Amino acid sequence: MPPAASLPHSVSICEVGLRDGLQSLQTVMPTAAKREWVRRAYEAGLREIEVGSFVPPKLLPQMADTADIVAYALTLPDLAVTTLVPNLKGAQRARECGVHQIVLPISASLMHSQANVRKTPDEMIDELRRIVADRNAAGSPMRVSAGIGTAFGCGIQGDVDPREVLRLLRAALDSGADGVGLADTIGYADPLAVRRLFAAARDVAGDRLWTAHFHDTRGLGLANVYAALEVGITNFDSSLAGIGGCPFAPGASGNVSTEDLVFMLDCMGVSSGVDVGKLLDLREFVARHLPGEALYGVIARAGLPKNFRPLAA
Amino acid sequence: MPPAASLPHSVSICEVGLRDGLQSLQTVMPTAAKREWVRRAYEAGLREIEVGSFVPPKLLPQMADTADIVAYALTLPDLAVTTLVPNLKGAQRARECGVHQIVLPISASLMHSQANVRKTPDEMIDELRRIVADRNAAGSPMRVSAGIGTAFGCGIQGDVDPREVLRLLRAALDSGADGVGLADTIGYADPLAVRRLFAAARDVAGDRLWTAHFHDTRGLGLANVYAALEVGITNFDSSLAGIGGCPFAPGASGNVSTEDLVFMLDCMGVSSGVDVGKLLDLREFVARHLPGEALYGVIARAGLPKNFRPLAA
Repeated sequence: MPPAASLPHSVSICEVGLRDGLQSLQTVMPTAAKREWVRRAYEAGLREIEVGSFVPPKLLPQMADTADIVAYALTLPDLAVTTLVPNLKGAQRARECGVHQIVLPISASLMHSQANVRKTPDEMIDELRRIVADRNAAGSPMRVSAGIGTAFGCGIQGDVDPREVLRLLRAALDSGADGVGLADTIGYADPLAVRRLFAAARDVAGDRLWTAHFHDTRGLGLANVYAALEVGITNFDSSLAGIGGCPFAPGASGNVSTEDLVFMLDCMGVSSGVDVGKLLDLREFVARHLPGEALYGVIARAGLPKNFRPLAA
Repeated sequence: MPPAASLPHSVSICEVGLRDGLQSLQTVMPTAAKREWVRRAYEAGLREIEVGSFVPPKLLPQMADTADIVAYALTLPDLAVTTLVPNLKGAQRARECGVHQIVLPISASLMHSQANVRKTPDEMIDELRRIVADRNAAGSPMRVSAGIGTAFGCGIQGDVDPREVLRLLRAALDSGADGVGLADTIGYADPLAVRRLFAAARDVAGDRLWTAHFHDTRGLGLANVYAALEVGITNFDSSLAGIGGCPFAPGASGNVSTEDLVFMLDCMGVSSGVDVGKLLDLREFVARHLPGEALYGVIARAGLPKNFRPLAA
């Protein structure tokens, strides 16, 4: 599928720094600071935030206050409140908290899946089926999304077969997922691979293909976003200040940085509804609460161009 | 013009670190180290190197030994030896030294042009005409290229009208330039602007459109390369370790890093003939000779992916 002649007019960004970012840092951010992060991200125009994950606090103390953050985020009108869940138990907690949408990560790499959740990808598909059944039995409106991770390669096993990614995508949809996404969990994607796999995924999932989740580990994050835009993808995960490392790539940067993403989109006239100036102010706030942690992102260092025209301000 | 369904099979990279990189640093690299850089870049597979510029040593002491580096570079078989020249006098020196190709920079921004060379863009077109006439009168085989700079915006005047860029491109070709290039001198380009302007430039210049020169000042360097590849551009400037800042953007990174560029191309199966492993070794050598200078590039920090397959090794 060749790329389209024009880019989408608008896209939606989900801020994942509070989850994918914070979970990989040593610092445990205080609940009040997280709440302020959510509030100011909302004020900057973000309308989808992954505020945490429902995992055992023993495993991830950084996420122990997720229920509190969810409760606060739910007070903000028109904000889609998302959490990650690793299993049925987490999904039930999310549902009880009134979360709008959960993401179940399913690694396409068998070795990564076993290292990460001690389950095979197909066992995670079974878990997804149980989660959907539980949600339906409870009559909950909570949306269930499956994020197919290590979709472009894996730091443990190396190659991941795109056919396996598409098989899991189909299996997730057949198991009742409302939407699916592809995640380059460790930053192995390149723009051509993105163009090919997202175009193929679109053919499989249609408008149930919700999310592109890129890491910038090897400097290709924004190039990958551009390639995905060209095949019509309109939902992107990103993390303020690019936080969110990878245990298999120490010292490497994490997610695509939200402020750099909004900057690129603004340059190209693609509306995200997010004010990059407010994001840069928020970045300073977040930096103060993460002393000693590595932050990424280029715009904060280089500054905005003289002729820059923000789309949202 | 929509992007093509497939990328070029191969591209040519011109290493410009010895010119665009070193000219912006405080450190004056010793001639022996420059020579070793040229030798090892050649061994890594590079077949075009911009080895310096013929400017007054009082203005740029970093470039005072350009004639020596040219003489050494000319001993390497099949290496295209390029220098930048600001005027006829520099072009004459380059010709006398046996340089294969010169690049005359012509800023599309009137204000940048006046600040940089104290001439208007049209006065630079006149200079180009004199350079071509002198070259022809001497019966020299030296190729003359015009690099239209600040093609995507200017740190002083802000916007640069793409019509002015295309007018100068036409004027340069009409004045006898063998080839032309577009340079995002200060890192203002975005992938959509690249797609549009390079497609339009291709319509004007055909296969005399030689070069895309991107800076990574705002993190979009590789995304811009990808967008240019999609409209069929096959010649890229880059700089080892991304050196090459901009006086109008202090602290900002410089050119697209050669090693990151080769990495992205290899990932996508686009052959450059350059061995990324040898570039990473060379980067360490260059780093030792630039103590205290900021180096850029992501791959050197993050490492190559586990499943990476170099095309040239």
